[in-house]
Amino acid sequence: MTAAAPLLDLNADLAEGFGSWTLGDDDAMLQVVTTANVACGGHAGDGGTMRRACRAAAARGVAITAHVAYPDLQGFGRRFLDIAPGDLTDQVIVQVGALQAMAGAEDAVVAGVKPHGALYNALAHHEAQAAAVVRALVELGGGLPLLAAPGSVVVRLAQEAGIAVVLEGFADRAYLPDGTLTPRRMPGAVLTDPVAVAEQALSIATAQGVRAADGSWVDLPVRSLCLHGDTPGAVALARTIRARLESAGVELRAAL
Amino acid sequence: MTAAAPLLDLNADLAEGFGSWTLGDDDAMLQVVTTANVACGGHAGDGGTMRRACRAAAARGVAITAHVAYPDLQGFGRRFLDIAPGDLTDQVIVQVGALQAMAGAEDAVVAGVKPHGALYNALAHHEAQAAAVVRALVELGGGLPLLAAPGSVVVRLAQEAGIAVVLEGFADRAYLPDGTLTPRRMPGAVLTDPVAVAEQALSIATAQGVRAADGSWVDLPVRSLCLHGDTPGAVALARTIRARLESAGVELRAAL
Amino acid sequence: MTAAAPLLDLNADLAEGFGSWTLGDDDAMLQVVTTANVACGGHAGDGGTMRRACRAAAARGVAITAHVAYPDLQGFGRRFLDIAPGDLTDQVIVQVGALQAMAGAEDAVVAGVKPHGALYNALAHHEAQAAAVVRALVELGGGLPLLAAPGSVVVRLAQEAGIAVVLEGFADRAYLPDGTLTPRRMPGAVLTDPVAVAEQALSIATAQGVRAADGSWVDLPVRSLCLHGDTPGAVALARTIRARLESAGVELRAAL
Amino acid sequence: MTAAAPLLDLNADLAEGFGSWTLGDDDAMLQVVTTANVACGGHAGDGGTMRRACRAAAARGVAITAHVAYPDLQGFGRRFLDIAPGDLTDQVIVQVGALQAMAGAEDAVVAGVKPHGALYNALAHHEAQAAAVVRALVELGGGLPLLAAPGSVVVRLAQEAGIAVVLEGFADRAYLPDGTLTPRRMPGAVLTDPVAVAEQALSIATAQGVRAADGSWVDLPVRSLCLHGDTPGAVALARTIRARLESAGVELRAAL
Repeated sequence: MTAAAPLLDLNADLAEGFGSWTLGDDDAMLQVVTTANVACGGHAGDGGTMRRACRAAAARGVAITAHVAYPDLQGFGRRFLDIAPGDLTDQVIVQVGALQAMAGAEDAVVAGVKPHGALYNALAHHEAQAAAVVRALVELGGGLPLLAAPGSVVVRLAQEAGIAVVLEGFADRAYLPDGTLTPRRMPGAVLTDPVAVAEQALSIATAQGVRAADGSWVDLPVRSLCLHGDTPGAVALARTIRARLESAGVELRAAL
Repeated sequence: MTAAAPLLDLNADLAEGFGSWTLGDDDAMLQVVTTANVACGGHAGDGGTMRRACRAAAARGVAITAHVAYPDLQGFGRRFLDIAPGDLTDQVIVQVGALQAMAGAEDAVVAGVKPHGALYNALAHHEAQAAAVVRALVELGGGLPLLAAPGSVVVRLAQEAGIAVVLEGFADRAYLPDGTLTPRRMPGAVLTDPVAVAEQALSIATAQGVRAADGSWVDLPVRSLCLHGDTPGAVALARTIRARLESAGVELRAAL
Repeated sequence: MTAAAPLLDLNADLAEGFGSWTLGDDDAMLQVVTTANVACGGHAGDGGTMRRACRAAAARGVAITAHVAYPDLQGFGRRFLDIAPGDLTDQVIVQVGALQAMAGAEDAVVAGVKPHGALYNALAHHEAQAAAVVRALVELGGGLPLLAAPGSVVVRLAQEAGIAVVLEGFADRAYLPDGTLTPRRMPGAVLTDPVAVAEQALSIATAQGVRAADGSWVDLPVRSLCLHGDTPGAVALARTIRARLESAGVELRAAL
Repeated sequence: MTAAAPLLDLNADLAEGFGSWTLGDDDAMLQVVTTANVACGGHAGDGGTMRRACRAAAARGVAITAHVAYPDLQGFGRRFLDIAPGDLTDQVIVQVGALQAMAGAEDAVVAGVKPHGALYNALAHHEAQAAAVVRALVELGGGLPLLAAPGSVVVRLAQEAGIAVVLEGFADRAYLPDGTLTPRRMPGAVLTDPVAVAEQALSIATAQGVRAADGSWVDLPVRSLCLHGDTPGAVALARTIRARLESAGVELRAAL
């Protein structure tokens, strides 16, 4: 294989249960992805869900990120919380620490941090919360890279603080010419045709960009692709994407 | 000072608030103790309370233990929970991990683990739960000593597993001839006379034992003394104990 | 229809999700049962799950009980909690009250109370907790009947306090000659043959008793039958039971 | 007494503990107020805190409101949560229902509803959340009045829906000429001089208005005055206000 072989990380959210509750098909997704974002107590995840995810990820050689979130089990971390920056920093630290200890118990390591849901969205533009997450990463030692969307405020702040950033894209979302996602309320925001989705994944992997809705070319220098896994259809789509990438010779490997 | 100088650790429970709620006078107790047991999310404690306690303990050179507990904020960890051993192991790991990460953020370290409340009591006799806590300590790497009561089942299991144990006694509780605490429902179980309490502390420090209620001598080879701090009177009593020990030349130093 | 027509209530646990999490197939079970035990915040259940269950139950004419439980979402109410009797009374009251308000919002009513999981088991023998639940029912006005197992301590205490009791039996559990359930750890404790289960249901409905494991006859004067619904197989079994009862002319009607 | 006797309700937040934690001096405040806003599980409050507050309020003839809040114990309901309107409606219903049941157990009644903290602030301008709270009041039967600030969006929506509204003012906050509170970030927003605070209370009671910061007159047709009680100084200030009102012949009586 020459040095030019395209390379991509496939990440998905796992371990999103709590106590007796489960969500999604973790086993199926672990066969597709190279990185597992493991819930660590904010929007989901207790000791047991963390252990099972760490064990399974380690057994398959899948990298682990701490999927940090607003402290909101009832809302699954999907609603914005106007948390004080200091409190957000503290939350990220204890959520990551909990997962680090459990990963260690399973001879695994936490290789990075990915914000979840409403927090992920807020970090695209909310300076104070973005700075709070970056401060947590610095206080955690500075060695954990951040998985984030291109153009997010948090990306700039992380880089200024010396935190490594891994950018991620989406195969099933349309992009605007400026490289941001087409809002879900707009028509065509979500791609549903498996062929189109797989081709967008391949375009991201091999050409580091996609065609925007208006046909213009958008550079997307992302190293990771975020796959969804919380519906049966999503699992099948994830498999389709992986198969397309593999058939095109894309090397799938964790980015963290 | 010769090698014969008696030595004692004074530990107390701190950081037992949650969110906007506080409990006890942490600042006052930090001036008395050499070890702070910091709540880490089981019976109390969130990111903010952990940070403040770690910061204050580090500033005063006070050692930190993870004060692990049943997951029961509403009951403050004071009621027995028939938790499955595997779930208890997982709880201890994530609670310790959360505190370790926060201690690290404050340039401090977690030096040991102390079970709280009803869990502490259960570990005296409940084999399965005691084994679960020991397993957590092993999975956490085996380097964190356990703070426990003499005669507890968990002490034996910890030692068998190669986990270091620091034994602790109480200055304000009467002992039975077999070295266990006089149950609280019995008369005279709790000592309230400050002079008597201070003398029992001194006896523990210098003679490694106390007089039982029936006048017989009880060996108490403990390295630490547990002080209570959740009432104003308790703080004053803790100060009295410390003063008495210092005036008698007892060296006060963390055991962990 | 003559007075001799056998009559039975079929009850099952519903609404056992929380936030984004779901458990079991509520829609399927609502087509089988005549009473729905609705989780009300102890082991599961938030405002949204309560509303959906109340709405669906009301639409089908299914009676609603408050499925009260230890406050333990993480453990799903399945582990014994040594809660103080006063605290247990308060828990039952607020859980029932929450569901009553939501039922009212959906033009439905709470017709009774059924303890869940480890609390249900404790009430068979734990005098203090049984008295605490009965006290809650008295303080709630005394008009809500209790759904419980024959021989439970709580049945006696409830009747002494003037609380109506509806006894329930199980079609898929073997009984001992004394009328208690064969413990799950013993062989044959759980019946798995659908025909045998359906016949036991029919025996309960028409003869008010079952054959114990040793072949002796056990009187079971129960008015309700508890069906399980949290697995696909359980739903099919529940349908089989209902079909058998209907084919034999048993009238299925809520007991509350 | 002639019809011209000025009349005022004094309300304060009570029962803001959780489990072992307490906040404020409920006993002291119950001697000052005519209405107690009782936390009901959103920002604080469990069965035990609700019971004690209901019992004490009933014993003193103090009216009870349900102090509904975002579901956020950790943040004490003080941070905005972008909760879906349907979920907010459900939250208000179950919180009110829990308190109603407990009030009933103590032979008391819930006489109204007062939103807490960040929810209170949001209802001043957030149409969707205001509508959600009003919908909850309608679904609760429409008989519970709402305690709110003049000019709030929720006041208009409640009145349109036929929900009674009791307006409240503040003695220790400066008003802008438009009748809204001077934001806390501005100088002079909080009055600290006890005499000035007491005079503003008296002005509200007797003249139904206050002088704004710029000296202009602001009409404040409020029927209730909100007192703070979560600091020792606040209790003393509340007593000063009550004494001043009583000495001027203002009749203090619950508005609900």
